[in-house]
Amino acid sequence: MKEKLNKLNALSAEIIDLTHIQALLGWDQQVLMPPGGTEDRGNQAALIGGMIHERMTSDEIGKLITDLETEIGDLTADTDEARTVKRIKRLYEQQTKIPKKLLVEFIKVTTAANNIWVKAKQDNDFASFQPILNRIFELRREIANLFKPYDHIYDPLLDQFEPGMKTADVKKIFDKLRPKQVELLEAISKSKQVDNSFLKQNYDQALQEKFGKHVITRYGYDWERGRLDIAPHPFTTEFSLGDVRITTRYLDDDGASALFSTMHEAGHAMYEQGLDKKYNRTALAGGTSLAIHESQSRLWENLVGRSKEFWTFFYPTFQMLFPQYLGDINLEKFYKGINHVEPSPIRVEADEATYNLHIMLRLEIEIGLIEQSMDTKDLPEIWNSKMKEYLGITPHNDSQGVLQDIHWSSGLVGYFSTYALGNLVSVQLWDKMLEENPNVSDEMMKGEFGTIHNWMREKVHQYGSKYDPQELVQKITGSKITPEPYLNYLSKKYSDIYNL
Amino acid sequence: MKEKLNKLNALSAEIIDLTHIQALLGWDQQVLMPPGGTEDRGNQAALIGGMIHERMTSDEIGKLITDLETEIGDLTADTDEARTVKRIKRLYEQQTKIPKKLLVEFIKVTTAANNIWVKAKQDNDFASFQPILNRIFELRREIANLFKPYDHIYDPLLDQFEPGMKTADVKKIFDKLRPKQVELLEAISKSKQVDNSFLKQNYDQALQEKFGKHVITRYGYDWERGRLDIAPHPFTTEFSLGDVRITTRYLDDDGASALFSTMHEAGHAMYEQGLDKKYNRTALAGGTSLAIHESQSRLWENLVGRSKEFWTFFYPTFQMLFPQYLGDINLEKFYKGINHVEPSPIRVEADEATYNLHIMLRLEIEIGLIEQSMDTKDLPEIWNSKMKEYLGITPHNDSQGVLQDIHWSSGLVGYFSTYALGNLVSVQLWDKMLEENPNVSDEMMKGEFGTIHNWMREKVHQYGSKYDPQELVQKITGSKITPEPYLNYLSKKYSDIYNL
Repeated sequence: MKEKLNKLNALSAEIIDLTHIQALLGWDQQVLMPPGGTEDRGNQAALIGGMIHERMTSDEIGKLITDLETEIGDLTADTDEARTVKRIKRLYEQQTKIPKKLLVEFIKVTTAANNIWVKAKQDNDFASFQPILNRIFELRREIANLFKPYDHIYDPLLDQFEPGMKTADVKKIFDKLRPKQVELLEAISKSKQVDNSFLKQNYDQALQEKFGKHVITRYGYDWERGRLDIAPHPFTTEFSLGDVRITTRYLDDDGASALFSTMHEAGHAMYEQGLDKKYNRTALAGGTSLAIHESQSRLWENLVGRSKEFWTFFYPTFQMLFPQYLGDINLEKFYKGINHVEPSPIRVEADEATYNLHIMLRLEIEIGLIEQSMDTKDLPEIWNSKMKEYLGITPHNDSQGVLQDIHWSSGLVGYFSTYALGNLVSVQLWDKMLEENPNVSDEMMKGEFGTIHNWMREKVHQYGSKYDPQELVQKITGSKITPEPYLNYLSKKYSDIYNL
Repeated sequence: MKEKLNKLNALSAEIIDLTHIQALLGWDQQVLMPPGGTEDRGNQAALIGGMIHERMTSDEIGKLITDLETEIGDLTADTDEARTVKRIKRLYEQQTKIPKKLLVEFIKVTTAANNIWVKAKQDNDFASFQPILNRIFELRREIANLFKPYDHIYDPLLDQFEPGMKTADVKKIFDKLRPKQVELLEAISKSKQVDNSFLKQNYDQALQEKFGKHVITRYGYDWERGRLDIAPHPFTTEFSLGDVRITTRYLDDDGASALFSTMHEAGHAMYEQGLDKKYNRTALAGGTSLAIHESQSRLWENLVGRSKEFWTFFYPTFQMLFPQYLGDINLEKFYKGINHVEPSPIRVEADEATYNLHIMLRLEIEIGLIEQSMDTKDLPEIWNSKMKEYLGITPHNDSQGVLQDIHWSSGLVGYFSTYALGNLVSVQLWDKMLEENPNVSDEMMKGEFGTIHNWMREKVHQYGSKYDPQELVQKITGSKITPEPYLNYLSKKYSDIYNL
């Protein structure tokens, strides 16, 4: 068994190397590459992508998995060996169940769809995007069908991003969440709005960068194993355990947006940096799911970064850097300003109180389209009526509505709900951490984040993807993913800010 | 034949893609990678390196070459087909003639040697480097022997970098060059030295960068297909025809060094950018040899960038940017300053009048060691006596002498002379270009470089590696690589500057 396991690990180490090489090709393209490089970079990425697929679906790996599964018996046993085989088996099946012909068609359709979407969004022309969007959902349905048996046809799509999560679970969670969030939003909308105009100014970019770096350095982001660059859409990427990079983008008309992006991405990056070294270049490396990843990013962005304790320490420095905008703004006003709530049509600009509602709407539409209880032709109408119902607003046009996100055009169906689940998990973890470490509030006011970071590393980061997400949350908090803690958090926070 | 050629081209396109991916791994490591990434980046580079070797030496390629050679007949025919097969055959033979075992040993020895050299150079301790240096030359000798028959055992080593060039040719060229260069240097040393102290100041880096970009933009470096970054050792690298990047490095105590580096690298890059599109991702892509490459970089750095015409246009701007150092310096003084001649122990800091002498010394030593007429034990003594003989100086120590260059520790034997050959070719091309375009001097004084760039693109760049270097020089200038034009150029230039 030892020998077979070593063989499997050696094969997967090379696949991981290829994945990291592919990540570098992508990172460079987004961060640095001159426009002329696009075409050949496509060839390079396709070459590596093909190699990954070929190796991941090789008979050699299939045979090793079958043999090792027999020898190990229970792949859910709490050993690295069992979990390694379980993880590789999952990846192997995901890649082998889809016939090459279908996969190639899917790649072709989504590559074309992406360009069509860019233009449709620009031109506010949903009709031009609708046929190919329809085709994408047809293909996704076809792919989902290959993963029978399932309880619900949407399950396999969700499972790609959130292993073990079922449609029924998410629905149940969201059904509890929705009315409470809508209710909270209504209460806020009836209260006196807080001012955030002092943030909507042209803050010096170099100083923003300096401050952002200062903050995440104190968080514990390891610069020996990372760097911060600029990209149009902030993201985190990993080329090895020793090289986990983040990007951010600075806005001319907002002094805090880049800062929160930086904290967010640092949260993702510290998760990857915190992996136990023994899992480096193994199948257990890397965060276990998107929701758990998002729990880390949202925790550092919101639970820490938008807290009064955090700013008790940092605000004097921030104010000193930008006296022209903040000279007259006291901590209390500043704190309220960065927690300003206002329903907006755009998900990525949404505040904590409205964010999840954007997600729920998307989940309902995805399920509707996959179940065929909705038709892509009716999407603009469905979108706008749900926006009205949940957020009380109607987008000006489809570009700001149903066309706003890149996900569907890239074939990403089943992805969105992980954003909301991540929010829930962030508070579940936070509460548990606070329970065990009641001094954390005081520490934050002193600019100390070691307790939080170490706790997350010990409970979450070190394991990589050894445990499935629900299993991990259960193991840490004693409960599955559940909405109550998040609702309590929102209610408490905004009652204070908006005097509810 | 068509079908086989297509197959061969498809295989080589993938090998080229892999080479470009490997280049990105290396570029990122030198320019951006945080220190923590080193170990795993090594794994990634080794993986891609192994794939390149495996594909390049595959039986499939070997068979295609044999078949196509029979069908084509004369591989030196002036068709793309013949030249493609010739080029791939060359690479195939270079890689297959060396047994894997020997190759692996060579890689291991040079990897170790590199670290030993770094430390030896730091500690000024040649004795600690000598045994492994000796081993490298033994291995290089063993490798050279695999390429029998040859006229001289050094030929195969030279041929790696300069296809078709023979030891006897280089010796003949250098034998003509040496006495004349030594003589010129003696004459200069007896003249009144020119002042360059105004350059040896701390020039603002941001302004240096702005000016450097301004210059190479006017040269015609294509920013849509490139970028300029900072790296400790300036270099040019190519990820595709659409993405040819350069690096430079700014010194705190020299205001022009980075500028000349930037021009130099832009010269390399414009060569790569100027390839005919039809050769992209084929075996004919990429410069044909190091000497031809160096002819382009030295041309833009020296023949253009250190000319009086160039500075007639640019000096007012440069002076405006740095009035604190240049306010009192007129064009004439400035021009002399950037062409200041002074024998120094360090090759990379050498001026035009002394540079080739550094090269000749190295070539003689390489040949001596490969022929076994010299012993690595005696190198410091040999080095210093030759330095005295050619340049009239003795290095303070071995770190500034025999230990200064990285090349030997990396296993690069046969490389150095291409630097000097490049200087010679640069003037041969320049003279021919001037003959056909007598207005170029006037154009340079107006900051116009289109005629030069277009001529180089038409005569040199577009062909990539279709023609062997000597063949290319012959085709363009009607002569082989020859030292007279360079000697005339030096003599004319320095007679003026030093009133000889």
